[in-house]
Amino acid sequence: MRLVRIDWKGNSKWGILEADSVFSLDGDLYGDFTRGERLCALSEAKLLAPAEPAAIVCCGANYWAMLEHYHLEVPKEPVLFFKPLCTLVNPGEDTYTLPIAHDTRYEAEMCAVMKRRAWRVTEAEALDYVLGYTCGNDMTLYDLLALDGRITRTKGYYKSAPLGPVLVTDLDPVGVRIQGRVNGETTQQGNTSDQIFSMARVISHISQFMPLTPGDVVFAGTPVGGRHVDVGDVIEVEVDGIGVLKNKVVMG
Amino acid sequence: MRLVRIDWKGNSKWGILEADSVFSLDGDLYGDFTRGERLCALSEAKLLAPAEPAAIVCCGANYWAMLEHYHLEVPKEPVLFFKPLCTLVNPGEDTYTLPIAHDTRYEAEMCAVMKRRAWRVTEAEALDYVLGYTCGNDMTLYDLLALDGRITRTKGYYKSAPLGPVLVTDLDPVGVRIQGRVNGETTQQGNTSDQIFSMARVISHISQFMPLTPGDVVFAGTPVGGRHVDVGDVIEVEVDGIGVLKNKVVMG
Repeated sequence: MRLVRIDWKGNSKWGILEADSVFSLDGDLYGDFTRGERLCALSEAKLLAPAEPAAIVCCGANYWAMLEHYHLEVPKEPVLFFKPLCTLVNPGEDTYTLPIAHDTRYEAEMCAVMKRRAWRVTEAEALDYVLGYTCGNDMTLYDLLALDGRITRTKGYYKSAPLGPVLVTDLDPVGVRIQGRVNGETTQQGNTSDQIFSMARVISHISQFMPLTPGDVVFAGTPVGGRHVDVGDVIEVEVDGIGVLKNKVVMG
Repeated sequence: MRLVRIDWKGNSKWGILEADSVFSLDGDLYGDFTRGERLCALSEAKLLAPAEPAAIVCCGANYWAMLEHYHLEVPKEPVLFFKPLCTLVNPGEDTYTLPIAHDTRYEAEMCAVMKRRAWRVTEAEALDYVLGYTCGNDMTLYDLLALDGRITRTKGYYKSAPLGPVLVTDLDPVGVRIQGRVNGETTQQGNTSDQIFSMARVISHISQFMPLTPGDVVFAGTPVGGRHVDVGDVIEVEVDGIGVLKNKVVMG
């Protein structure tokens, strides 16, 4: 099933996407729901980021090709960081670079959105707690990392987390192709089978120190090839089976 | 003025504290409000953390004595990290250590809660965006820092941010004494005049890369002396002019 969150008469509303139509999601997004009335054509819908998280937890250095490219040590456990909620960007909306940085990069990723509270779940059961999967772009003020010696500003800046366009509930997150394009040119090509830690392992690991709650978002890392972007560049993140997340870079 | 957030018939409600009585806060917490009817005695109230944040941003290594003690370099800019929202702990409630760590420490701090959206505010105007100040305890799984090489689990774990008991709106955050006690023994004694970066500077710095929004919490760092705590220990954070934040450590 393909879920979308749309702006509906000024409010946020969850819908079910079938063919080119958005239908009302009647009931509890995280529990039982049914397909209600047709709301609009997809082309008429203003899509919102398909998650309402209390936390956005991200995994860095999680692809083997990435480790080789940057000569990084193999991490013993998932390397995690937080993005604050103000980083979220809707599909089609502008993402930011900031004047305090000179090397802004994009990173194409597959993300999970949680369905149930996950506190100390095993890797074997972790995916049962997921509502669905979507595309994410982990925008990064790369040059601030060396300056700060930590990732807070680098990854936590305003409007640095485009997410969407749809949430796919019946995707197997293993063996999924991820591509990243800048102005139509492909710079990232990867597959989640190249992840050091699977989505299930990442979720299980997070859940050992904090409970993930319904709506929370997990970014599972980027393949090699995320690169510098400038103001005006259009970034596309494509995850097979999900779709294309497209955002333009503007100066924030 | 002294504001409290209380559990009121199962819901969260803001109140105004006068002498030993809690009065209803009628109107907009972040705008205009007046004192309404008397709700209860303070002794009858179940206090909640006096903030409803979308982000909790913290400053590390921000006291001169701390730098000297640990032989740290003087940071050029505030050293920041995030705590996710699940870290919040109410006054009097239990805070956590976790079985994955062996050296849990407490850190007494003064915190600001934001009143207005602060995006690129100057140091001179930053405090105009603050609703009030309260006590915070930045609980830390200290031994995980060396293991992870980053602060995410160390500082971002479940129930690691006790906050309260009251929010004081008319406090000058400069020159305020902070004390930390474990089972009645004082281990931290500091003064915010020993901060490397003032609360105003920290808020201004954060606002250059992300907007702080009403309810957001800023932890301004801890004086030297935060130390190891064990299950059963009772931690008190006292900030002059605010009060005492008291929480027991339990195994989470």
